[in-house]
This record gives sequence, structure tokens and C-alpha cells, in this order.
Amino acid sequence: MAERAALEELVRLQGERVRGLKQQKASAEQIEEEVAKLLKLKAQLGPDEGKQKFVLKTPKGTRDYSPRQMAIREKVFDVIISCFKRHGAEVIDTPVFELKETLTGKYGEDSKLIYDLKDQGGELLSLRYDLTVPFARYLAMNKLTNIKRYHIAKDFDIAGQFDPMIPDAECLKIMCEILSSLQIGDFLVKVNDRRILDGMFAICGVPDSKFRTICSSVDKLDKVSWEEVKNEMVGEKGLTPEVADHIGDYVQQHGGVSLVEQLLQDPKLSQNKQALEGLEDLKLLFEYLTLFGIADKISFDLSLARGLDYYTGVIYEAVLLQTPVRPGEEPLGVGSVAAGGRYDGLVGMFDPKGRKVPCVGLSIGVERIFSIVEQRLEALEEKVRTTETQVLVASAQKRLLEERLKLVSELWDAGIKAELLYKKNPKLLNQLQYCEEAGIPLVAIIGEQELKDGVIKLRSVASREEVDVRREDLVEEIKRRTSPALCIC
Amino acid sequence: MAERAALEELVRLQGERVRGLKQQKASAEQIEEEVAKLLKLKAQLGPDEGKQKFVLKTPKGTRDYSPRQMAIREKVFDVIISCFKRHGAEVIDTPVFELKETLTGKYGEDSKLIYDLKDQGGELLSLRYDLTVPFARYLAMNKLTNIKRYHIAKDFDIAGQFDPMIPDAECLKIMCEILSSLQIGDFLVKVNDRRILDGMFAICGVPDSKFRTICSSVDKLDKVSWEEVKNEMVGEKGLTPEVADHIGDYVQQHGGVSLVEQLLQDPKLSQNKQALEGLEDLKLLFEYLTLFGIADKISFDLSLARGLDYYTGVIYEAVLLQTPVRPGEEPLGVGSVAAGGRYDGLVGMFDPKGRKVPCVGLSIGVERIFSIVEQRLEALEEKVRTTETQVLVASAQKRLLEERLKLVSELWDAGIKAELLYKKNPKLLNQLQYCEEAGIPLVAIIGEQELKDGVIKLRSVASREEVDVRREDLVEEIKRRTSPALCIC
Repeated sequence: MAERAALEELVRLQGERVRGLKQQKASAEQIEEEVAKLLKLKAQLGPDEGKQKFVLKTPKGTRDYSPRQMAIREKVFDVIISCFKRHGAEVIDTPVFELKETLTGKYGEDSKLIYDLKDQGGELLSLRYDLTVPFARYLAMNKLTNIKRYHIAKDFDIAGQFDPMIPDAECLKIMCEILSSLQIGDFLVKVNDRRILDGMFAICGVPDSKFRTICSSVDKLDKVSWEEVKNEMVGEKGLTPEVADHIGDYVQQHGGVSLVEQLLQDPKLSQNKQALEGLEDLKLLFEYLTLFGIADKISFDLSLARGLDYYTGVIYEAVLLQTPVRPGEEPLGVGSVAAGGRYDGLVGMFDPKGRKVPCVGLSIGVERIFSIVEQRLEALEEKVRTTETQVLVASAQKRLLEERLKLVSELWDAGIKAELLYKKNPKLLNQLQYCEEAGIPLVAIIGEQELKDGVIKLRSVASREEVDVRREDLVEEIKRRTSPALCIC
Repeated sequence: MAERAALEELVRLQGERVRGLKQQKASAEQIEEEVAKLLKLKAQLGPDEGKQKFVLKTPKGTRDYSPRQMAIREKVFDVIISCFKRHGAEVIDTPVFELKETLTGKYGEDSKLIYDLKDQGGELLSLRYDLTVPFARYLAMNKLTNIKRYHIAKDFDIAGQFDPMIPDAECLKIMCEILSSLQIGDFLVKVNDRRILDGMFAICGVPDSKFRTICSSVDKLDKVSWEEVKNEMVGEKGLTPEVADHIGDYVQQHGGVSLVEQLLQDPKLSQNKQALEGLEDLKLLFEYLTLFGIADKISFDLSLARGLDYYTGVIYEAVLLQTPVRPGEEPLGVGSVAAGGRYDGLVGMFDPKGRKVPCVGLSIGVERIFSIVEQRLEALEEKVRTTETQVLVASAQKRLLEERLKLVSELWDAGIKAELLYKKNPKLLNQLQYCEEAGIPLVAIIGEQELKDGVIKLRSVASREEVDVRREDLVEEIKRRTSPALCIC
């Protein structure tokens, strides 16, 4: 083992050497030569039997999905995708990593969270942090000025120059449709506008250079108290207590369209061009939301700021509501499950001529929603089927493997979802047990006699009742018995 | 700009400093302090307007998918997934990156191709290179000894201790079913066994330590000539020409079950325990493949080696066949579109006690298949619809935006796939044009008169014929007109 440890150390050092050469952009020959040495060392090392050596786990912040969890995930995705399609969205996809430059300078303080890849001898790459920046890169790269798309079942965006607030209203409608159909409880969508925030910061006396960083302080108000946020503004970000308090008076307000009206009367705020634009757009937005029948789900909330730098207009965030413990209490938000907003400047950051493409979009917090649905189903102790197998091909006697293989193959070729146990001579009991566990509704049983008579014994696992079916009718009979009662197309 | 450049340089250096500290495992406070400085610098730098500075592109070896390409991709995925489900597979998913240790020492010479992530202050991570190693890690982590699963619509595996060659045969059946249903032309599945290769290497006089590396030389035979492979074996990998030639005599043979029989008579090879096991299993495999009706698609090919280290038994690779230019010529392989094999040791490499879980699986070359299908459709100049929108809500006169919003919302709530143009007063012609381009079959036209009469004018885009439909009947009428002729459940 000591010898192995030494060898491992050699491999490590040689690996460093190769990486070093790559960083120094050494000649291809030189790198190849060192890589060859590395491989030779690794070959000596042989397959890594280092068992106890490391804990079996997935990387921090990631998880596996078991078949049960995937079944739930697919149900959730079905709801989301069918909503996106109902609103006429196309679908695109982009790689899981991007050139580092593509992602830098787009997120602000959140960019701490970006995973960089090691230099692969050439490009600097990072894992995508959201789907919005890759989408903007895609639009600029393909010179697209107009598209409505969704992206791996969680992001929906509308790009293009349109009349104000119509696409924005549709995004909010989509969020409400999805959260309602998921039946994960009552929810509320907080709405605000970056222009209102910036106007407010201006009239409160925040220097322009600090707008974004103060924005991310305000954004913390859903997690921490105003006191703590104020301390951050004054202590870390250098605002005077007066300025902070002035901000506090505003950001602690929330309400409906009436609050919009009220702020339109605010002598200071209404004098600020940006704030005024934002407020007038919000007023229009509320009109459309009323026509869409979702105004009651929307709350204009001046404390909503959203962390990311790229938003330029309306922003929104949906939170699930916990029914209050005592009557009369305000329902409590239990974290964001969907969010989005307008980002009119992002595509221009990629366009050589800075040509702008206005965009508005939303993102569904699928991970969070999965675990909520999962918990609910666990609480209900609901059994989730993880396969769709219609029939198990079984045999009562021994020496019938070949017949089972022939029959199951016939069924597959006819489009029937069928399985068999991978044993030469399985016991009938074990085959029936397998059906019970996997929730397979039918068993097609072959026996010497059935073969002679040209029939198959078809057994219903639930009722245990058995009938002989002529082999040529088997496929139709299985389809008849397992097709959904009502066909929804 | 010079000032900006300087600032950028400062940011870069500070970034390096932070990374350095992380690598040196400096104290959290110290790192935080430097990160704070970094962020301050970045804040001064402001959003990155560096336009011309870099080429807009995706990372090497990656691509975007346009709506048209996604529509094709989804058709391909549908074929693959429905086949996996037909064979009773559950579905799992694992993260896109793994602990570096999870991936190292599993692939052999291919491991050059693994992307490492930069140290995020703690874990060493790498992007997954295939789905097989993450699957084995998943089995060991969850102590699973028995599962049949698929993984993001391309990998299918059967794990468990079963009677020989039954799951292996099903994997080959699945490959053939998928390639047939995709209708991408004639194909052939090459089959071999690692035990036959190793036995062959042994009797040819290859030292054990060189089995794997000679294996990857042999694996190149589908791309380069035997001469080149021989040169590599002798020149780079230090075999004697005699040994190489001896290997050459074997690896240039291919055929059906008859070749298996013939090699079972081979005095030297049949004396090698490993080779004998492999040959006897292949004989059994061919029996099962005959029962599955696919034996004619299978070719026992001694030159098939597969690059990856983890295979331990049967290996296979499907190639598309180019119809020969001249009659009598052998059809030419145009690259692998699916492959797989048996890997009985991999799970044990993760299990603390080395407990083994035999596995056999296959992987579909989806990227390659997409581009083949894409090319075919382009050749046919086939139009691919990228949305499913059933109806566009339009208006003939001005000042009807509110009415359009109300109607489209009604339709969405009733589950109809509907769109409207995001303009206050769009021209009817533009609205009809939009339908033509997007392939939307119906237009629901609102007009002053229709509103008075409580009807909607429903227009068929194809026939241009229009009828008034009572508003309360609109949903049913749209469903009736747009539901697929025949319902396949």
C-alpha cells in the first residue's frame, strides 16, 4: 500500500506538471509527451481500488433522483411544459457550460456562485448559472429579435419590441396557471419595478454607483428584519442612517393597485422620471391582470428587489402562503417558487453593435416544487408507479425460457410494454410477486398445455381471475384491458 | 478605456489571489476579505460592456438547439423513451458533475477527455463523462443490487445477478428496436467479448499489464488500417512484430455464430479459460438473439474492442450501413450510433466491501442520430412545426385589445393552446400572416358586431372559410377541429 501511495503521489505531481504546461501554453508536443508519461503512471497504478478512501456522495448542492422522485418530477414537468405550450412557446436548448466571458458581469453579487471549469488547454469555461444569460447569448448570436420560447421545462421568455406590459402580463398569467395546476397550496405573486426602486433610491439620496448593491440589500428583506438590512446599508455599504431610514419608509409598503395610485400622488417619487414610468406601467399591468382574472393573486411590494443585475423593469416573485396559525394573522410566505422580470439590456451586452432586444421572462423553482410535491405524496403515503409495464410473460413449468423469450419479443414488436424475469426456471409465485411489487396489472402465463392448444393464460393480478386467450388475440386483449378508461388527446 | 483595462487587470489579479488562497486552504475570514475586495473592484468595473472583445460562440464540442432542432430532438427522444418503457425500465437522474474521485480510474485512456471544475473552495469536481459511472456510483451509494433503468433518454442498463446472457440479449434487442423505429437506414451490430480479447492477447503473448492499452489500439481498427494499428502496437506500445501479427490474424475476422463455433475449435484459443467462457456465452447469446428475431443484424467481430476500461464481458456497437456503390461490395460502416456492454466490476469499485453488482447496458448516440435525422428532413425540405398553438385570437377593428385579452385568457383556462399578437391594434392581415408562418390552423376573430351578437368568427387558415360560433361553444368547436383524427393512447 505504501508503494501504491507513492505511485499515487507521482500521478498527482505529473498531473500538476501537465496542467502547469497547459497554463503556460507549452508546445503541443511537450504537453503530449507529459500526458503520455501521466497515462503510463496511471496504467501502473491500475484501476482505483481506493474504496474506504472517499465518501460516496454527490457534489454539494446537487442530488440524485430515484425512480419514484423522477416519476414525480415528470408529473411536475408535464404541468409546466403543457402550460408553456398552451401559450405558444417554442423550445430551445443550450449547453450546460458557456465561455466564462459570456457569464461574467451579468449577475452582480450573485456571480460569486458561478462554477468555473479548469482550463482544458484553450477555452475558459463556466457552468451556466441560470438560463437567461445563455438565452440572451443565443439571441445575439443568431441575430434574433423576436421569439417566445421555453428552456428545459423551467424558463419561459418573450423577446421582442411590443406594446407595453402585454407580454409582462402573460408571464404573470403563466406563473399563476402553473402554480394553480400544481396544487401545492395558496400563493401570492409579489410585483415591483426596478425603475421604481432606482427612482426611490435617487430621491432618498443613494449615489448612482450604489443602486445595485443597495438593491441586493433590499432583496434580503424577505429573509431578515429591516433592522439587519439597515445595518448592512449603513455599516457595510456606507449609507447614512437618514438615507437608510428614508428607504425603509418606502420598502416596508405593499398593497394592490391602490398603492400604485397612492405613490403616483407621492410628491417626490412622482417627480422622478424613472419612478413615474415604472408606476404608470404597473397601473397598466394591473388592468391586464384583471382581464386575465389573476389580479387578486398579485401584490405590489416595494421590498421586492431581486438579486440579479440584469433586470431593468417589472420584476416578480411567487411565494407559497402558509395558512396562518391564529385567525386574523397575515399569511406567511414560505419562500419563492417562481420568479422573473424584464431585462431589456442583456442581449445588447452581447451584440457587437449593442443592438437591444427587449425581453421579459420567468423561471419556475422546479427543485423546490419537486420536494414540496414529494413531501405531500409521502404524507399521503401515496404509491407512485415507476414503470408502465402492462404484462409480465411468465411460465408455470420449467424449460420454457425459449417460449417466454419468443412471446415477450412478439409483444415488444407489437408495441406492448412487457417484461420477463431473467431466470431460466423462475417459480410462478416469484413471478406473481414481482407483478404485485411493480404494479404490473396482467400476467401472460405459458404452459405445455397452452402451447399445444395455441392459447395463453391471461391472469389479472388484482382479481386473480384467469382466462385462456388465443395467441393471435393476445395483443388486442392486453391493449383492451390496459388502455386508459377515457382517452384525453 | 485604458483606465478600464487597468481595472480589469486588477480584477483579474485579485481573482487569482482569491483562487490562490482557496487552494492554500486559507482561513474563511481571509478568503471572505479578499472576495469582498474583488467584488468592490468588480462593482467599480460595472457591467461588462466589452462587446467586440470576444467572439460570440458556444464552448468547443457543444451546440445550441434551435426550435426546429428541438422539435426533431423530441421526436427522436420519444422513440427512444417509449422503447425503454416498453422494456419496463424505471428512470433515474444524477447531477451533471460528480466528485472528481468518482470518475478517476474508471475510463482508462479516454479519461483525458474529462472536464475538471475549478476548486470551489472544498470539493474537486468534474463534469460527468458518461452516464455509466454515475449510475454505478448511484447503485453503490444506495446499496441497490437490482434495477432496470434508463437515464436521460439515452442510457439503458440492467443491474443484477441473473442467468447468463438473458439481459445482454435484451439490450441488443432494444438497440435494434430503436434503430429500426428511427428509420435512419440499414444498420449492423458488431458484437465481441472482453474475455475473448483478453484470452486472445494472452495466447498471442501480450503481457497482462498491456491488455487494456492494446485493447484501445485494436479499438481504432474501424477508423484506421491494420498497418497503422500494428505500428502503434509495435512502435508506441512495445509489442514484437510477431505478437502484433498474431493478433492481426484474429482481429481481422468477423462473421456469425459459425465463427463462434469455429473459434471454439481453435486449439490455442479454446484452451484459454477466459476465451472459452466468452465464446460459450456468445453461442448462448446468438440462440437468444435468434428467438428475438434479430440474429441477422448481429456480426461477431473480433476487431471490436471499445475504448473504455470498465467492460468485462460482452461488448457491442451499432453502425449505420452505407448502401455499397457497386453491387457485390460489402456495405460500409459510417460510424457508431449506439454501443454498450457488460461491466461487472464497476459498482464494486465504489462499494466499501467491494461487493459486486453485475451490470449490462447500452447507450444511444443521440447527438449523431439528431444530425442524421436533421439532414434527412432538410433533404426532404420537410416543414417542422415548432409550436402546437391551436388558435390565434385576433380582431378586425381597433380598440379591441381588452376583448382579445379576455378571450385568450378564457381559452387558456379551458386548456386551449392559444396566442395573440402583443400589439394594441394589429392589422388583421398581419395576424393572418402570423398564422401562416407559425402553422396555426384556426383564427378566432372578434369584432364589434360579433360582441353584440355574442359570437366569435372562427376562420380556418387553410380553407379561409369562416363561421360564427356561439362564444359558449367556442372551446368545444376548437377542440373538435384540432384534435388528432385518430387517438393513440
